[in-house]
Amino acid sequence: MNMVLLETVEDILVIDAGLMFPEEEMLGIDLVLPEITHLLTHRERVRGIVLTHGHEDHTGGLPYLLQQLTVPVYGSALSLGLVQDKLREFDLEADLRPVRPGDRVGLGEFQVECIRVSHSIPDALALAVQTPAGLVLHSGDFKFDPMPIDGNLTDRDRLAALGNEGVLALLSDSTNADRPGATPSESAIGPTLEQLFRAAPRRIIVACFASNIHRIQQVLDVAHRLGKRVAVNGKSMTANLRIASELAYLKVPPETLIRLDELRRLPPEHGVILTTGSQGEPLSAIARMAVGEHKQLEVEAGDTVVFSARVIPGNEQSIGRTVNHLFKRGAHVVTEATCPGVHVSGHPSQDELRLMLALTRPRFFVPIHGEYRHLHWHAELAQQIEKPPEQIFVLEDGDILDVRPSGGAVVGRVPAGRVLVDGKGVGDVGETVLRDRLHLAQGGMVIVVIGFDKTGAVVAGPDLVSRGVTDPPDEALFEQARQLILEVLDGISVEEKTDWALIKQRIRSVLRKFLQKTIERRPMILPVIIEV
Amino acid sequence: MNMVLLETVEDILVIDAGLMFPEEEMLGIDLVLPEITHLLTHRERVRGIVLTHGHEDHTGGLPYLLQQLTVPVYGSALSLGLVQDKLREFDLEADLRPVRPGDRVGLGEFQVECIRVSHSIPDALALAVQTPAGLVLHSGDFKFDPMPIDGNLTDRDRLAALGNEGVLALLSDSTNADRPGATPSESAIGPTLEQLFRAAPRRIIVACFASNIHRIQQVLDVAHRLGKRVAVNGKSMTANLRIASELAYLKVPPETLIRLDELRRLPPEHGVILTTGSQGEPLSAIARMAVGEHKQLEVEAGDTVVFSARVIPGNEQSIGRTVNHLFKRGAHVVTEATCPGVHVSGHPSQDELRLMLALTRPRFFVPIHGEYRHLHWHAELAQQIEKPPEQIFVLEDGDILDVRPSGGAVVGRVPAGRVLVDGKGVGDVGETVLRDRLHLAQGGMVIVVIGFDKTGAVVAGPDLVSRGVTDPPDEALFEQARQLILEVLDGISVEEKTDWALIKQRIRSVLRKFLQKTIERRPMILPVIIEV
Repeated sequence: MNMVLLETVEDILVIDAGLMFPEEEMLGIDLVLPEITHLLTHRERVRGIVLTHGHEDHTGGLPYLLQQLTVPVYGSALSLGLVQDKLREFDLEADLRPVRPGDRVGLGEFQVECIRVSHSIPDALALAVQTPAGLVLHSGDFKFDPMPIDGNLTDRDRLAALGNEGVLALLSDSTNADRPGATPSESAIGPTLEQLFRAAPRRIIVACFASNIHRIQQVLDVAHRLGKRVAVNGKSMTANLRIASELAYLKVPPETLIRLDELRRLPPEHGVILTTGSQGEPLSAIARMAVGEHKQLEVEAGDTVVFSARVIPGNEQSIGRTVNHLFKRGAHVVTEATCPGVHVSGHPSQDELRLMLALTRPRFFVPIHGEYRHLHWHAELAQQIEKPPEQIFVLEDGDILDVRPSGGAVVGRVPAGRVLVDGKGVGDVGETVLRDRLHLAQGGMVIVVIGFDKTGAVVAGPDLVSRGVTDPPDEALFEQARQLILEVLDGISVEEKTDWALIKQRIRSVLRKFLQKTIERRPMILPVIIEV
Repeated sequence: MNMVLLETVEDILVIDAGLMFPEEEMLGIDLVLPEITHLLTHRERVRGIVLTHGHEDHTGGLPYLLQQLTVPVYGSALSLGLVQDKLREFDLEADLRPVRPGDRVGLGEFQVECIRVSHSIPDALALAVQTPAGLVLHSGDFKFDPMPIDGNLTDRDRLAALGNEGVLALLSDSTNADRPGATPSESAIGPTLEQLFRAAPRRIIVACFASNIHRIQQVLDVAHRLGKRVAVNGKSMTANLRIASELAYLKVPPETLIRLDELRRLPPEHGVILTTGSQGEPLSAIARMAVGEHKQLEVEAGDTVVFSARVIPGNEQSIGRTVNHLFKRGAHVVTEATCPGVHVSGHPSQDELRLMLALTRPRFFVPIHGEYRHLHWHAELAQQIEKPPEQIFVLEDGDILDVRPSGGAVVGRVPAGRVLVDGKGVGDVGETVLRDRLHLAQGGMVIVVIGFDKTGAVVAGPDLVSRGVTDPPDEALFEQARQLILEVLDGISVEEKTDWALIKQRIRSVLRKFLQKTIERRPMILPVIIEV
């Protein structure tokens, strides 16, 4: 989870406050947040939060953090615009302070300088933080895009100047540390889109991330150039388009945008739909169109569907399935797999990572952003260009790295768990709930209800109720199980009659063995005893 | 699911009887089988099953099929060896009839000719079936490997000869229809392995599929050449090694194999471990080694771990996690992502697909093997080389294709669902069970138990029991819920007192709204009423 703390004895500076999307075994979980115990314990030292850019994995934890900690939040205009929209959903007011590339902000003992970088969202920043121990450079998410859509190049001169002045530590983006070469420019997408748009005999549907404003700009520009009209679909796509236009990050060409219902009245060869759902999410517009369950839109034979986004690991099956359905409807489907030019990454590949290291020549190097293997590969790359291993720190969440001109070392840990969000609950789903949900998911459940009177005599049941075990519930099987439970109850001695825990334990044990033997399944078995 | 039926009025010939592994939303399911209602209905016409090769997605349905249908099974020696091992687990005897490339087998009106093809398992076959309507050619899984490990090239001369004689319909492998070029030879792996083995300072662990006998051969050969010893780990790896050695598909170099406990006593630089677990399956040896939970083996700093297998879509997260843990232990981890030479596919890429079409020049073309999008891409490729669309049939499971020299058309459907296997149950898990399991997985459950006497008066409860909702169960919340249920019970009129369905319905509705409002969760709510 993307959140870095810089600390002196006096002050704490927070860089980013991201969230994570749940891993596949986090059943029923909506979001994952970083634990902030350490921040709350030392709340009086926290001087502020600085955002490198507006992606949710860097800002999505903010609403939760700001509910517990009142501190100013610094970020570029677009980052704050997107954050503000989110805070409104939470009914939160915050002290948001816009910064621009070149700005310097004093926060306690820290002096933060904002440096322009290019990325897959406009207005992204690297942060050069002057600390009592020396300069710490945080790359944010970046790439060295040679031809960014808005013309805003990563400020390589300033990075080099910092290298000359002396960088104590570089923290740098590792997301693509396994990719050789350099990441292509975002502007390479436009010509590919234009080719696809020109070849398309009918309606065009483009799915991309709602935050990819430069991608959206290119879709709008190409459509405008070819005399096509664009309708926007999806809540976040609509919101981001509005915010980015208001803040002038997006230049909507005249007479290009129309409403979805207007688009439906156009000849199909004139219409472009810009939509979310690039990950094949089952409830997204595009997945619903693919199976003919979208209220307003239908995909018809000859339509072109472009997935202009990366596949987030774990979504291969849902995207694949959506593509299958679209093909069945006779659509022409374009994905990165068959048309690599349809998407480029916003993160630096190995050549760019080497360039960042070469420009800034840090004394210490800390790979950040990515899973452990990406950090490892990034560290390996630094070693290949002669960075001594003792100056490289591959950290895990919570590690405390002490850096000073005389040396660096991991000196301890702060609490750094994952806080799971399920509905309105933050942190009330832990190991037990997840284990129970997994058990229920794998095997369903069998409930055994028994009524005892005060003497311990059975006056009702045992009744068995099952869900998620067999289809339909296997009456004969459960009648056998009932008989086994009756035997258990018969075998209970007089002294044990009120020991409900023991009775439940025996029922569970007998039933577990019985179901394992008969159907080889392991439903959750839940004896419920009530006293009448 | 890989199973093709060829039918005349008199006879049915079955080609392959595969299984599928469950998709991610098939909670708790072990395997997926093709529905065989049609075969059972017409059992007296079924002349036999012919296997193209020994992979489970082509043979794994056999034990289930043979339990219901007694027919001879034809296949190469290795295919039948692997099948026999499986049938033994099911305590099944079957009429297995080995065939070799060049063999011709008469099955009713069909004359089946076996043609050698190279694939990622030895002894794979394409099948040329002479039918009353003309020749139908089934490619099996194949590639045109220019330098297969066992020297057994795909029999391109025979394919070309069939092309000259006239092929009515070609059914051809579409798995890699999205990949340009030609798939590299399996023999390209050896040199890469040798380089990795030479560079490895300590123990080497290679994970691959247990059926990839040629890959295993290369690991053994390289180890032998470098004076290293190999221990085998994993049930299927051990079994397949035994079967393939017995049938002489694998030539184990002398003094190369040792037992795992012997290997542990060797200096680490002399040991190689060949193991399953290439998909990061949580219970596999390699995943357990990665987190230090394997009883006999530890991964230590400096060990080399090679994942010599493709990533099956859906396993990205589990493999990634295993790799993270291995890096944390200081291992050197090699995967296809960072070292493409460490794995090659067993399926044909686009150049090879074009070659197959060019050699056989079929009148009708039916892409098979792969999801719908792969079939679509394969059909597109055929169109690009001037195959008229009306001669290409992209079929879905169950479609009946009628082909005869005068023309081809889809003329109907046979029942073709998916039969889910969970433990010992085959087909007793359907939509309802899966929906319930999903519901339980996402939200857990709340049980409400109430005891009524014969007059409809509440004599016990309402008691609430929850699992998988909050951690720990939220006492205050459930007390509020109990009060709401008491209100529901109070509001039940005298006439309604014995209408348990109505009472349950009201409880579910009230509780659902309450939990949605308070915690925004949707557990399964299960009112259980017992009469005392």
